[in-house]
Amino acid sequence: MRTITLILEYDGTNYAGWQLQPNGLSIQEVVEGALARLLKGSVRLRASGRTDAGVHARGMVAAFDTDRAIPLRAFSDGLNALLPPDIAVRSAHEAPPGFNPRFAATGKHYRYTIHRGERRSPLARLQSWHVRGALDLAAMREAARHLTGERDFASFRTAGCAARTTIRRVDAVEISAEGEMLTVDVHGSGFLRNMVRIMVGTLVEVGRGKLTPEHVAHMVACPGVAPAGPTAPPQGLCLQEVRF
Amino acid sequence: MRTITLILEYDGTNYAGWQLQPNGLSIQEVVEGALARLLKGSVRLRASGRTDAGVHARGMVAAFDTDRAIPLRAFSDGLNALLPPDIAVRSAHEAPPGFNPRFAATGKHYRYTIHRGERRSPLARLQSWHVRGALDLAAMREAARHLTGERDFASFRTAGCAARTTIRRVDAVEISAEGEMLTVDVHGSGFLRNMVRIMVGTLVEVGRGKLTPEHVAHMVACPGVAPAGPTAPPQGLCLQEVRF
Repeated sequence: MRTITLILEYDGTNYAGWQLQPNGLSIQEVVEGALARLLKGSVRLRASGRTDAGVHARGMVAAFDTDRAIPLRAFSDGLNALLPPDIAVRSAHEAPPGFNPRFAATGKHYRYTIHRGERRSPLARLQSWHVRGALDLAAMREAARHLTGERDFASFRTAGCAARTTIRRVDAVEISAEGEMLTVDVHGSGFLRNMVRIMVGTLVEVGRGKLTPEHVAHMVACPGVAPAGPTAPPQGLCLQEVRF
Repeated sequence: MRTITLILEYDGTNYAGWQLQPNGLSIQEVVEGALARLLKGSVRLRASGRTDAGVHARGMVAAFDTDRAIPLRAFSDGLNALLPPDIAVRSAHEAPPGFNPRFAATGKHYRYTIHRGERRSPLARLQSWHVRGALDLAAMREAARHLTGERDFASFRTAGCAARTTIRRVDAVEISAEGEMLTVDVHGSGFLRNMVRIMVGTLVEVGRGKLTPEHVAHMVACPGVAPAGPTAPPQGLCLQEVRF
């Protein structure tokens, strides 16, 4: 038995998220369908995690087992010929037998893109959140510092999050500006459901002067007491890389 | 009578190009339709030029005349509320009466984006041309130098081009690389139909070693004798700016 890992890039616009689900087409379903055609038998993928509906990925990692002795290239170029234009394998690798990216992952890098323009941008609309008005970057960066380290992120998860512990380690929250685009790069050991989007929604409230950096410090010091900002919309988020 | 100019951004993916035409929905038709709703009367736009089906714009300029004494903001934010997500007014301005962007334009800036990755990129697919294999940037840049200056670009136009003269002045052809993305910025006084896309298609043939920089020199020295490279696909092209 071989275990293969795929590094996948996808445009999440037209999908109900990564994970198989009854109420919409998922990326997992499409990739498993293409693999089933390639291997002439059903396959179950083990992914490094989920992405929500509308969220993108440049480096989703998914593994599967197969008995077939076909060249590795079949799982990159061969699979790409069977996948739709909005999903692609960027590379395929042999992995230790039974490799599970979810448990093997040691860290993830998410990027959230904000378009801070006076007017909406058609060319940026599918991969950014349009935020009108000035944003105080210095205040956002000060608030971001409170979100790094090993912290209790209970205030930064969605109602449906079933994680047993809400302690996570965030290694860096970096905010970069280039023209009208603002990029928030978040590196961490692991993330609660919607954690990055709630972090970004909260940082934008700080940028607008509606929340203070001290409020954000309070959110992680006293979880569940200080309310979070809104959840930033999905299309600005991209899973850039999973580290092992 | 007032004349208003609009600076328009659009994602050309789902349109049959800028110009009104019977066989498909054009951007002009959509913008004129939104203006007609706003002004309660039909309006004809005078654009700085056309863009072909699938080509994008960040700075298309279109002017129209109106008797209505409504605030300028109605033509930006007001019009944006009536336009679909893939078309937007970035700004609106008062112009001299009868202003015609096509005749007033002194220069244009087009940007062509190439994704030179071993495998296709779902997130870049709608705004770039995927070119596999190595590209010799030094050779491409040498060839690009032959395309600057006042030249006869007869070899760089499509069969349907009706321009009276094929002499155009190209001020700069700049090739920049960042990771897997290659950007070709072309600045010039004016362009023949498909000229930028044929220039880029030809430069890519040079990058692949299938044409030499000398061949490109010959194309402009002896128009119509040396064949051009293929026409690069539309989705990589964006009209960045029109200068007056």
